[in-house]
Amino acid sequence: MRSDRLGETLLPKRIALPVFASDALSSVAYAPDEIFLTLAVAGGAFATTHSWQIGLAVVFVMLVVVASYRQNVHAYPSGGGDYEVATVNLGPRAGLTVASALLVDYVLTVAVSISSGVQNAAAALPFLKGMEMPVAIGLVVLLTAMNLRGVRESGSAFAFPTYAFMIGIIGMSLFGFYRSATGSLPQAESAQFGLLPEPGAEGIAGFAMVFLLLRAFSSGSAALTGVEAISNGVPAFKKPKSTNAATTLLLMGAVSVTMMMSIITLVNLTGIKFAEFPGTQLTLNGTPVGEAYNQDTIIGQLSKTIFSDFHIGVVFISIVTGIILVLAANTAFNGFPVLASILAKDGFLPHQLHTRGDRLAFSNGILILAGAAIFLIFIYDAKVTSLIQLYIVGVFVSFTLSQTGMIRHWNRHLRTERDPKERRRMMRSRIINTIGALMSGTVLLVVLATKFIKGAGFAIAAMVVLFVIMNRIQRHYARVRTELAVEDSADEQLLPSRVHAIVLVSKIHKPTLRALAYARATRPSLLEAVTVNVEPEETQALQDEWDRRDIPVPLKVLDSPFREITSSVVDYVKSVRRGSPRDVVMVYVPEYVVGRWWESLLHNQSALRLKGRLYFTPGVMVTSVPWQMRSSEGAEERFEGTGSGAVGSVRKGK
Amino acid sequence: MRSDRLGETLLPKRIALPVFASDALSSVAYAPDEIFLTLAVAGGAFATTHSWQIGLAVVFVMLVVVASYRQNVHAYPSGGGDYEVATVNLGPRAGLTVASALLVDYVLTVAVSISSGVQNAAAALPFLKGMEMPVAIGLVVLLTAMNLRGVRESGSAFAFPTYAFMIGIIGMSLFGFYRSATGSLPQAESAQFGLLPEPGAEGIAGFAMVFLLLRAFSSGSAALTGVEAISNGVPAFKKPKSTNAATTLLLMGAVSVTMMMSIITLVNLTGIKFAEFPGTQLTLNGTPVGEAYNQDTIIGQLSKTIFSDFHIGVVFISIVTGIILVLAANTAFNGFPVLASILAKDGFLPHQLHTRGDRLAFSNGILILAGAAIFLIFIYDAKVTSLIQLYIVGVFVSFTLSQTGMIRHWNRHLRTERDPKERRRMMRSRIINTIGALMSGTVLLVVLATKFIKGAGFAIAAMVVLFVIMNRIQRHYARVRTELAVEDSADEQLLPSRVHAIVLVSKIHKPTLRALAYARATRPSLLEAVTVNVEPEETQALQDEWDRRDIPVPLKVLDSPFREITSSVVDYVKSVRRGSPRDVVMVYVPEYVVGRWWESLLHNQSALRLKGRLYFTPGVMVTSVPWQMRSSEGAEERFEGTGSGAVGSVRKGK
Repeated sequence: MRSDRLGETLLPKRIALPVFASDALSSVAYAPDEIFLTLAVAGGAFATTHSWQIGLAVVFVMLVVVASYRQNVHAYPSGGGDYEVATVNLGPRAGLTVASALLVDYVLTVAVSISSGVQNAAAALPFLKGMEMPVAIGLVVLLTAMNLRGVRESGSAFAFPTYAFMIGIIGMSLFGFYRSATGSLPQAESAQFGLLPEPGAEGIAGFAMVFLLLRAFSSGSAALTGVEAISNGVPAFKKPKSTNAATTLLLMGAVSVTMMMSIITLVNLTGIKFAEFPGTQLTLNGTPVGEAYNQDTIIGQLSKTIFSDFHIGVVFISIVTGIILVLAANTAFNGFPVLASILAKDGFLPHQLHTRGDRLAFSNGILILAGAAIFLIFIYDAKVTSLIQLYIVGVFVSFTLSQTGMIRHWNRHLRTERDPKERRRMMRSRIINTIGALMSGTVLLVVLATKFIKGAGFAIAAMVVLFVIMNRIQRHYARVRTELAVEDSADEQLLPSRVHAIVLVSKIHKPTLRALAYARATRPSLLEAVTVNVEPEETQALQDEWDRRDIPVPLKVLDSPFREITSSVVDYVKSVRRGSPRDVVMVYVPEYVVGRWWESLLHNQSALRLKGRLYFTPGVMVTSVPWQMRSSEGAEERFEGTGSGAVGSVRKGK
Repeated sequence: MRSDRLGETLLPKRIALPVFASDALSSVAYAPDEIFLTLAVAGGAFATTHSWQIGLAVVFVMLVVVASYRQNVHAYPSGGGDYEVATVNLGPRAGLTVASALLVDYVLTVAVSISSGVQNAAAALPFLKGMEMPVAIGLVVLLTAMNLRGVRESGSAFAFPTYAFMIGIIGMSLFGFYRSATGSLPQAESAQFGLLPEPGAEGIAGFAMVFLLLRAFSSGSAALTGVEAISNGVPAFKKPKSTNAATTLLLMGAVSVTMMMSIITLVNLTGIKFAEFPGTQLTLNGTPVGEAYNQDTIIGQLSKTIFSDFHIGVVFISIVTGIILVLAANTAFNGFPVLASILAKDGFLPHQLHTRGDRLAFSNGILILAGAAIFLIFIYDAKVTSLIQLYIVGVFVSFTLSQTGMIRHWNRHLRTERDPKERRRMMRSRIINTIGALMSGTVLLVVLATKFIKGAGFAIAAMVVLFVIMNRIQRHYARVRTELAVEDSADEQLLPSRVHAIVLVSKIHKPTLRALAYARATRPSLLEAVTVNVEPEETQALQDEWDRRDIPVPLKVLDSPFREITSSVVDYVKSVRRGSPRDVVMVYVPEYVVGRWWESLLHNQSALRLKGRLYFTPGVMVTSVPWQMRSSEGAEERFEGTGSGAVGSVRKGK
């Protein structure tokens, strides 16, 4: 997309909702599962009696967070993401913390969403069972390829599956409630099972029980992932941007909450039993069902129960759930490179991740994201339950710092604002953000307390590592900037007095002759050809041919007692510089250009090493004189590598 | 080592024997084991009744091969290795076949010798048991580091352990025979065991029995590996070189044969039972001894039996066996890079493996060898029995082709030689080499027939792959040579009419100013600075500072609708060339030089990409103007990478 076309497409609410909400809405595909399997630790009817409480707690947090982000949307109509809000209001260290959390989170969004998508699809497509990990990795590779090739989803590409998912889940729920009201809702297949507590959790009570409930609540908080996406996307909304974004945020919260509570209620109505270790925890007539039992996801079991004989309904739910989860993963493929680019612009990541004049920047980001996600999927065998332990902590680090930043934001504005009406509005916003910050912080503490050893610790460790790396990168760039800054004294512009040109020669062939001709064309003060005497016979042959051809440049032979080219040349160049320090030395290196990657391994290796060494020698310029071999024709584009991967259409993400 | 010092040290026979024979002599540490465990397949007393026959067959082949190579030594006093003999007499395809076989064999020499060394050491150092694979890999890494650092063993470093091994094995044997003669030789601990045949091999007879005997013979032929080493080393001998080398060869054959037959005899005298699967094949009172039984190597069992209470003797034998096997592996670390260098000189391998002016060439060879050996040790879990299946085929491919080449050699010389005495000598040599070729060929067929599916097939496959790769590399170099050859018409030397210099500018800092100053010093016909307009504000700021500083070079701003630097610059350069095709364009790229590897990831990436693209554009020179950052000071040497790895002292090997 040309830069003068960016920002042309503004989204109405009905398109913005699916574009920005796929990540958040897709969370209901795994959040209820995590609540039920955590509660199942206590066995028996514990899940049935407590799941709705957990659900309500999650809904409450969700509403608080949505209310808080509505304040962000109004305060930062330019689309300040959590990174920007934290940086502006709390300083660069807070911003960097948020950035670390978000980068880790993007990776987990891909890993969790894809893994869950495969698990959900497997409910209707049984041949996927047992193949989840390779299929998930295959899907990540596919997404990566699509994003590298710059396939851009239009808003409608998002709209159709997201609405299909919403209609599917809500329609299924309504049908379920109708069947329940008319007394025709059957029990789920897993309702017949007994549910054993995990060893050590029999008759759980007191602190242990509270801890288990908190753990279930932490897992259920996965439903909140992706809520912040809209706050980044405000500029993409139609006017009035902030108001439309805030309304969309509310809509998204309402739909998400409705879907989640419906699912929890229906699980209890149909008597579904769901456990982390179904083989040992689920019993039939007192004996465990064993590893052969295949436990479908909750949505899978619900659709099979509610739709009974209507197989197409089951397949429909399974497929739309799978698709929205893949879409959710895709939002990370847009968000990660954008965030990386912003961080690179601020000097926290290598410049080559910043888009400035570099269409490969996004490709780099996409490949890093994909590599990390594949690594996680491989390590955790595409198990959503394991991956989710790492997931939630980053989200709440980011929520908490962003909301704390918003409190500072309002404090600052209240110091200058005099209009009483406006002040009232700001104070109300500040109260909401304060509640949001306290709530997010509390959830963060709960998540850390209940999940740290289960995996959140790894996520924290990854964030710390990223933080330290980004910090060091930034310090490095700052140091370089200082060192390279031009003082206003003009002595840097002092011209060298003469140019001493040296053409490196190993044998006489077309590249050498071209290098000689070009070097002569620059009319240096002094021009000589230099060769290193490694094998005396070869050197003599070269000297003879040189004389025979009557080449009008003197050939100097450097002796090399250690039969080593690089050092001999470098030493000679240094001696030239010592002899006349105000001269600049220009070393011409003839090189071949070949078309195939393996061919380039066969050439120029010693030229490459020599150039590397000469770069360390002050007062030297190194000129490559390329000779294009026939095989290089048309290979120019191939050299460019991983294709366009152009700037993503609408910039979405966290 | 300086090139004018090479070849100074000539070896007397007493030093040459250990230097060149460690590989061949060390084979007796594993060859008898392989004979016995193969025969053990048939169970019972089969090994006792047939091992001496197999031993004699191997001795016979050994003597024939030694006699044959004595002819090579006389015919090629310059030290023609098998590769050279095959190339000269049978053509490059035969030479390449031998080279492929030898390269594969060097890798196997390292893998087999080190694995066997660790197994033998474990007989006296029981804490090594179960850790064989990591310890073997550790040893390879150690050898690699030593060879990369250019640690050179003097002849005496070889002499001591090799003589210690010879004295140890022969002394132990003599002591064993003495105890046997006086009736005081005890039975080995494993003599009490019964030996079950492997399933399916009970009551073996007829063809199956012959096949098993042939298989045992193939395995025993491992004793011949390394015999050819002396034929490479003739120039290192004191005069008369050929005669001394031939004598040393005979000595080596005699020692090797003596040691092997002594070991086989003593195994039968002490009743040692040795099986590939000791846990199931060995029985005590009718029941298998189980996996807990630790089977020592044959030399380990022999020393424990013969020395009875004399523990120091056991440890001595174990350690000298381990050391000579490590020395044998080390010969491959000398031989592989030398052969690779010769092949690179002949254009079959990348030039950077050839020493010409490149002290890193040997390091590359060493690293490739070490990597491949570690891979094999890892894959085969340091199991000598598995590795040996791959080993012997390469040796006999090389023997057979080399001996066949020798027949041709004598045929050619007989066509011109008129002196009847000399002709008689040549005809005798031809007979010996013919017998050698037939014998080697037969053994090769036996090895292939008995080992192909057990592993020799993999070795053959590796050789075929190497052959094809080396063939393609050679064709590529030939094509390049043709394309680059200078016709005698002088139009290549036509001077370009003018030089159009372009300095790339992204911002104004010291590197840019240096590049501008240097470019001005070369006084081009036309000089301009060029920047790409990616972000209009930045470009405007640059333009303003340019004017403010009054830089005496015009600044041209290239528009970039796709916010992409590389293409804009390349397109501009092409348009300049189109405008005046007889000009040459010189592009100056300011670059930073940093000292640490991770810093270089943070810089110059877009410069690197741009240079890569410009190389494909005809009529362009690319000049890097390096700016040395403070952190680069003293980093020059570090950049050089893997240290010296200088040319090995005495060039040994196959």
